[in-house]
Amino acid sequence: MSESSQFLNMNTIKYLMYNVHQTEKLLTADRYAAYDKPSLDLLLDSVKTFCDKSLHPFIKEMDEKPSTFSNGAITIHPQFEKILKESGEMGLVAAMFNEEDGGLQLPNIVFHSLYFMMEAANNHVTGYLGLTAGAANLIVSFGSQYLKDTYAEKMMSLEWTGTMCLTEPQAGSSLSDVTSTASPQPDGTYKINGQKIFISSGDHQFAENIIHLVLARVDGAPSGTKGVSLFVVPKKRIQENGGLGEQQVIVAGEFEKLGQRGYCTSHLVFEDSIGHLVGEENKGLIYMFQMMNEARIATGRMGTGIASAAYYASMQYAKERPQGRKLTSSGKKDLNEDQTLIINHPDVKRMLLFQKAIVEGSLSLVMQAAEYVDLEHIAEGEEKERYNLLLELLTPITKTYPSEKGLEAVSTGLQILGGYGFCMDFILQQYYRDIRIISIYEGTTGIQSLDLMARKVGLKNGKVLEWLANEVQTTIKQASSYESLQSNIRVLGESLNSIQRVLTALMPHAHNGDFERYLADATVFMDLFGTVVIGWQWLKIGVSAQRDLSEGNSEFSADFLEGKLHTLHFFYKYEMSRCKGLSKTLMDELALTVDMKLAYLD
Amino acid sequence: MSESSQFLNMNTIKYLMYNVHQTEKLLTADRYAAYDKPSLDLLLDSVKTFCDKSLHPFIKEMDEKPSTFSNGAITIHPQFEKILKESGEMGLVAAMFNEEDGGLQLPNIVFHSLYFMMEAANNHVTGYLGLTAGAANLIVSFGSQYLKDTYAEKMMSLEWTGTMCLTEPQAGSSLSDVTSTASPQPDGTYKINGQKIFISSGDHQFAENIIHLVLARVDGAPSGTKGVSLFVVPKKRIQENGGLGEQQVIVAGEFEKLGQRGYCTSHLVFEDSIGHLVGEENKGLIYMFQMMNEARIATGRMGTGIASAAYYASMQYAKERPQGRKLTSSGKKDLNEDQTLIINHPDVKRMLLFQKAIVEGSLSLVMQAAEYVDLEHIAEGEEKERYNLLLELLTPITKTYPSEKGLEAVSTGLQILGGYGFCMDFILQQYYRDIRIISIYEGTTGIQSLDLMARKVGLKNGKVLEWLANEVQTTIKQASSYESLQSNIRVLGESLNSIQRVLTALMPHAHNGDFERYLADATVFMDLFGTVVIGWQWLKIGVSAQRDLSEGNSEFSADFLEGKLHTLHFFYKYEMSRCKGLSKTLMDELALTVDMKLAYLD
Repeated sequence: MSESSQFLNMNTIKYLMYNVHQTEKLLTADRYAAYDKPSLDLLLDSVKTFCDKSLHPFIKEMDEKPSTFSNGAITIHPQFEKILKESGEMGLVAAMFNEEDGGLQLPNIVFHSLYFMMEAANNHVTGYLGLTAGAANLIVSFGSQYLKDTYAEKMMSLEWTGTMCLTEPQAGSSLSDVTSTASPQPDGTYKINGQKIFISSGDHQFAENIIHLVLARVDGAPSGTKGVSLFVVPKKRIQENGGLGEQQVIVAGEFEKLGQRGYCTSHLVFEDSIGHLVGEENKGLIYMFQMMNEARIATGRMGTGIASAAYYASMQYAKERPQGRKLTSSGKKDLNEDQTLIINHPDVKRMLLFQKAIVEGSLSLVMQAAEYVDLEHIAEGEEKERYNLLLELLTPITKTYPSEKGLEAVSTGLQILGGYGFCMDFILQQYYRDIRIISIYEGTTGIQSLDLMARKVGLKNGKVLEWLANEVQTTIKQASSYESLQSNIRVLGESLNSIQRVLTALMPHAHNGDFERYLADATVFMDLFGTVVIGWQWLKIGVSAQRDLSEGNSEFSADFLEGKLHTLHFFYKYEMSRCKGLSKTLMDELALTVDMKLAYLD
Repeated sequence: MSESSQFLNMNTIKYLMYNVHQTEKLLTADRYAAYDKPSLDLLLDSVKTFCDKSLHPFIKEMDEKPSTFSNGAITIHPQFEKILKESGEMGLVAAMFNEEDGGLQLPNIVFHSLYFMMEAANNHVTGYLGLTAGAANLIVSFGSQYLKDTYAEKMMSLEWTGTMCLTEPQAGSSLSDVTSTASPQPDGTYKINGQKIFISSGDHQFAENIIHLVLARVDGAPSGTKGVSLFVVPKKRIQENGGLGEQQVIVAGEFEKLGQRGYCTSHLVFEDSIGHLVGEENKGLIYMFQMMNEARIATGRMGTGIASAAYYASMQYAKERPQGRKLTSSGKKDLNEDQTLIINHPDVKRMLLFQKAIVEGSLSLVMQAAEYVDLEHIAEGEEKERYNLLLELLTPITKTYPSEKGLEAVSTGLQILGGYGFCMDFILQQYYRDIRIISIYEGTTGIQSLDLMARKVGLKNGKVLEWLANEVQTTIKQASSYESLQSNIRVLGESLNSIQRVLTALMPHAHNGDFERYLADATVFMDLFGTVVIGWQWLKIGVSAQRDLSEGNSEFSADFLEGKLHTLHFFYKYEMSRCKGLSKTLMDELALTVDMKLAYLD
């Protein structure tokens, strides 16, 4: 592939994985004994080839020839046949499963790196894989032996794909209000009835079967989330001989979307469809949240991938497009000079550095979350819990930061192209459309922010928040040996404290039972918290780069390492500077939303 | 029309016009003697009816059936035939011209209010009118009697429409690099040769003729902007008897765009096309900037209009969509209650108030700019110059603030709809696409920011900036009588000072000839300056609302007036709080863009 199709930087991925997040240390654990650095590099490089050949060349076409619905079935772009086949062969779904379940037991940080690459190449693709992995994981984690035997292998090979069916027309994000029903049958199965909307990868022509993981209420179950159960409902019934029977899930339509148009989104109807209970009745939401938490990390990662693709596309344009001239010391332009490339204009550099800061900071956060998954796997006792809960705390942030700031980054990339950015001939407008769903998928930014502020910061009475602060302090301590990082240390420390100050100021509202007031600005709190967390990730990257520079690490060039330090400083100058204003807003005593009369909105 | 199609609030428009910006005072001037409040109200209401009946119902269809190019001609949506006819009859182009030139001599603030209404109704429309008005205005202002006689009337009636042809493929925003040529002919005309791209309303089937105002270089002219002249080049030549001759401008193509798809954007080729010089040779850019400055205000206004439409569309959804429940004092939801409408959730109120703050603050700024135009018209001597230069200073801000923050507002509106916001069935996704061009049209945000920082703040050695500060101080003084506005006064005063502090800190770079460094963060400076200016507008609105509340003004309800005050406080809590961080970024001494090695971007 020519440089014209760059959508990520392999060096950056490897640097973040190996140097910043020290993946090689993980490999010393028994769990990952099958892997070493050369084998991981080979895997990364082969997925890069897959991205270059099978994914990226089709992204524009998948947008222009989107999935379509007719005669009760959805048709997706023909290239998906090859993609699903190759992905199955490469073990891209099996990668996340344990060996004992037929998986490849790949470190989670590597798994996410591979998916990030695929999403940077073509964000319309990974949903088909990721939902299959997530659905199969629910079956493997909580399902009966029958369910495991019937589904796991076919799903890992992508002969069958999977979905998660949560949303209903009347309920949206409010899962307490799920009304789909499940009536127990004498043979132990359930008849499922109800409608589900916005079902990603809900139907297509390239899997023999599609396995829906469906939330529904068993007859007589309690109201609210405590009466919701989880069922496996295959599109085609599985006969006793293992063959496929008739179709029992109705595909009622397809949503025509602003972006991700190659990734189908369907409306499904269950009418006496036979389903199998996963685990116990009324625990559906607890199970589903395992998948949901993974899906939230994946969604943040996808936003990061789209922003990466936009960054490289806009950089390419900036390197090729001549326009305007550099200012001379008289403040005039010298018209005898040729026009300069726009990448030489400071404002264009600013727009590129902004994108780089968002993309690489977000990617490092995704890897941080993945690292906690890996550490949880190999740790014991209290340490295990610590990593698990650190992940819980970071999950809403890992979902939200790349989606909100990623959109800003993509829009900035589009801006670099000027009028051409608005033209359909260039890819930026597509990324601008594609990324807009990321802050909505899997719980909107508002929902994530409530999760962060209502549940996560209070986990174990604030202990988990303290653990995270300790993690940040560890990085600060590492940074303290480097002169060049002193100002960053100070700013990060102050900003970290401001989170605590804000909570101290707001907590009394919660203690007084005024939860609405406590949570009113949760979205602003998320913005503050997310910025601090990315500031932490950048300092972590800076520590590594400074160390490698000092020690004369030869694997990465000095420009590469200095570029990381430069972007760290950029993030602090342009983004960390926002923290004070955000905490001021949060501590402001005017309750302008909770108490607002609706008549004011006119 | 049902509430379902609300896209603006007439009360707000009238309140800003009459109460905040005191348009009735203008009417005492001779220039506007033909108008009184009842006649203006009638005009506003009749244009509202035009919006409801002829514009708004077609906005979605214009997106879905965009303009198309074939056989050397562009075809636009059939509804435009009616729209152009009615607009001509209503005098919507003639409105901005002086009576002596055959116009209606409408106050500029009313003119902009009418166009804002049309843009909120359907942002694909006004470009056809506005460019015709702008082009005709150049002819009327600088053209010969022959040009005026030939073109003005036909353009005011919209029998003929107009364009501005600046951009060339190799030059983009860099007008120094225009290469189209003009060769003088013995009869005093010029043969024009060259290519122009991104020509809005460049061709369509509903005008007998299209009048292009074209920048080109007369043979032998100096290089750079000082060698650029302005020409009138009609699509069809005008014969001596006044009839239309052959087509002489080649329509080479149409740009397929992300948004504003009903508003055509063409590629034009001039091949020995006969043009008439406007004014003197080599002064083209000076003339063109009159049109350009108007177009910049109009562009900001258009962004405001789109954001207004998105605000009301998302509010309607929030008022109709039940989902989730209010939190009780135990922090739990009461599942026996029905779901609540989402407008009752604090985060949704926050998102609506944010939109309201941006839309109404931006609209007030557009009116402020228009008010200066009117005051310039009726003032004499130094006062005239003062208003003219205040307008010059505000122009890049009036272009930029509504485009950048309007996009954020529209995206916030989309977010309120959750997954439905991403679906093509709902209009929000269209506004999200439409508004994306606004920060690119007529000089990108980067260009506007350079204009603000390199030219405008230094006008008359900083005197004009002082004049603006005085205007803000006048509002602060008016506000000082009201207890409720004290905290806003303090914040606005501090933020205003921070602009001066930033300039004091950066100016030495300019004095030392390091203009790149002085201008490196011009875009951040624009963000700061724009926020302060909108903070000023909101305080102005607040003073008016507080006065009307205190005096028991009966024309507007207490809820309406309190809603304005509430939104003022919202703007200060959530937006003015950004100012400190922005000035911190601006005063940071790291020159991270100017000095950056390109190799850092990898």
